[in-house]
Amino acid sequence: MAMAEFAIGVDLGGTNLRIAAVDDSGRLLEKITTGTQVALGRDHVIVEMCDAILRLAAKFQTTSHLTGIGIGVPGIIDMATGMLRESPNLPGWNDYPVRDEIERRLNARVILENDANSAAMGEKWLGAARDATDMCMLTLGTGVGGGIVLNDRIWHGMTGMAGELGHITVDPHGPPCPCGNVGCVERFASATGIMRMAREAIQSGDAQQLQHTASSDPEFSAKMVYNLAVQGDRPAQEIFRRVGEALGIVLADLVNALNLPMYVIGGGVASAWDAFAPAMFTELRRRSMVYAATAPEPPSGAQSQGAASQVEPGSRMRTIITRALLGSDAGLYGAARLPMLPEEVAARNAPAERLRA
Amino acid sequence: MAMAEFAIGVDLGGTNLRIAAVDDSGRLLEKITTGTQVALGRDHVIVEMCDAILRLAAKFQTTSHLTGIGIGVPGIIDMATGMLRESPNLPGWNDYPVRDEIERRLNARVILENDANSAAMGEKWLGAARDATDMCMLTLGTGVGGGIVLNDRIWHGMTGMAGELGHITVDPHGPPCPCGNVGCVERFASATGIMRMAREAIQSGDAQQLQHTASSDPEFSAKMVYNLAVQGDRPAQEIFRRVGEALGIVLADLVNALNLPMYVIGGGVASAWDAFAPAMFTELRRRSMVYAATAPEPPSGAQSQGAASQVEPGSRMRTIITRALLGSDAGLYGAARLPMLPEEVAARNAPAERLRA
Repeated sequence: MAMAEFAIGVDLGGTNLRIAAVDDSGRLLEKITTGTQVALGRDHVIVEMCDAILRLAAKFQTTSHLTGIGIGVPGIIDMATGMLRESPNLPGWNDYPVRDEIERRLNARVILENDANSAAMGEKWLGAARDATDMCMLTLGTGVGGGIVLNDRIWHGMTGMAGELGHITVDPHGPPCPCGNVGCVERFASATGIMRMAREAIQSGDAQQLQHTASSDPEFSAKMVYNLAVQGDRPAQEIFRRVGEALGIVLADLVNALNLPMYVIGGGVASAWDAFAPAMFTELRRRSMVYAATAPEPPSGAQSQGAASQVEPGSRMRTIITRALLGSDAGLYGAARLPMLPEEVAARNAPAERLRA
Repeated sequence: MAMAEFAIGVDLGGTNLRIAAVDDSGRLLEKITTGTQVALGRDHVIVEMCDAILRLAAKFQTTSHLTGIGIGVPGIIDMATGMLRESPNLPGWNDYPVRDEIERRLNARVILENDANSAAMGEKWLGAARDATDMCMLTLGTGVGGGIVLNDRIWHGMTGMAGELGHITVDPHGPPCPCGNVGCVERFASATGIMRMAREAIQSGDAQQLQHTASSDPEFSAKMVYNLAVQGDRPAQEIFRRVGEALGIVLADLVNALNLPMYVIGGGVASAWDAFAPAMFTELRRRSMVYAATAPEPPSGAQSQGAASQVEPGSRMRTIITRALLGSDAGLYGAARLPMLPEEVAARNAPAERLRA
């Protein structure tokens, strides 16, 4: 009889390190969450991560076979070498053979993947895009990440850098972005973008409630801006309208270019869906005739924001824009999924020139 | 001995109807060019087209086997039904079974394809993207068309509407587009966009040369604006700077999203490459860190616009932005290519839901 299979997924964030053992049916066997002690340096984090992986592996290897380990990291990965090329949240990790070092310590197959690509794969495996062969996910967190899945596989592009959707331009004269561009969607549709717009609104002098909240609470956050919007505060509502507008523009670009059946919005900021979705759907419909031709029929009497979630069963050829379902676990599940997929493993063992084939 | 194979490609434009017999090595056997008498109605055009196809077929069928007929049309095609969904340049063709009607008249396999997708396939087969498995083409004509080729096949998306790159937003508050959006790249980087900007410059009163040319020549055209730019006229140069800026934004979006190895710029407006390319490369490099990380090394002392065309041999992992090579024949060759590709034929015979697989 074949032994059961499991894999270990790692979500290595700038703040949290989460490690999970997941079986090949998607069942969570065990999850470990710790803070990422980035300040203690790369080697410390790697030792801590490998220790936790080895503990989980030892526990389940008595009854199951370990397929491999998938690690989602915030940054651009060179798939051929298994190194990080750009990773602002993991200082000191660039140009270091992360994958090879971890493989050496664990003596197991390790797959390194961008965290937003991992999240897309997680939602495709077990979440909102479960039935989609082709999908795209936007992860709205501190920044905006993106992942594109085509023909059931992560679309990596020529050098593994595809899916940098957070840096699509939505306003050519907009605010500067650390990436070097101005007006990236990330400047609007991330927690950082919301805080930037909140500060601007406060400085304008027309946002008393925001100003009051900001000055009375030292932990003023995007969540508080959202709470004010829900309570009816106009300046806070205007901020989320701009979040929706930016998302609508980038979704329209993606629908026009790729005509995928499903676009999933995840990450912490996606919790503010009801505040930004109306503007998002308005912009999307206006800016993409492809969307207008394929949008789900709104249920009679429903408002536009209801269109995405209320699709009649059996409707196949509609463009669905919907919320992620796995919350902060999407990247963890997606990372665990990767070593289970022979084509994803093969892509990473091939010479870089052939990754695209 | 196997009989030689040939196919017939058709480029059905709003102005010209061109029909070519092409063998499977890409050799042009014969080409017929006539005006498209759109005003005489759909049925007239179809009869004329079918007559020409039959003449070519009869001529070469004595020595070769006719694989099929590919027809590139300006508009959005429903691949499952072989009907046009949107086609402003072919009034009266919507919701008419174009493919089935032509197949019935010719008693041969007919493949209907969007003209920009056909052009992308032509450049991939015999033109600038000959060695690329993955590529994207922007066709700058009266409007801006787009085609994306992934894993050697046209990326059609869910309903065959992918590649509508001309309607990607480059300025969220820009001029209105007939598609319903505002600030589409087509409003800037097409002949229509150039004429619009020229009229604006003339109305501003600061463009004497443009005004003089426009009032003295009843056939004032985008080509004349280009000629003025080449002669050093600043308002005309500024128009092409804006063409380049818009193209740079949309290319940055596409490089960030897809990280393809090659982007080809074709269509009549591409002849103005030297006038718009410097601004295009400047914007692209600034707006896409993926491009900045993968741009070809400029030859020492060369200016930025030289970067695309001067790639050292053997360099594989660079993002190439380059001019199309086949001129106005790209779509004709691409249309002829389609019936030669078993996967493209199969995609069109499969149920619509499975086109994506």
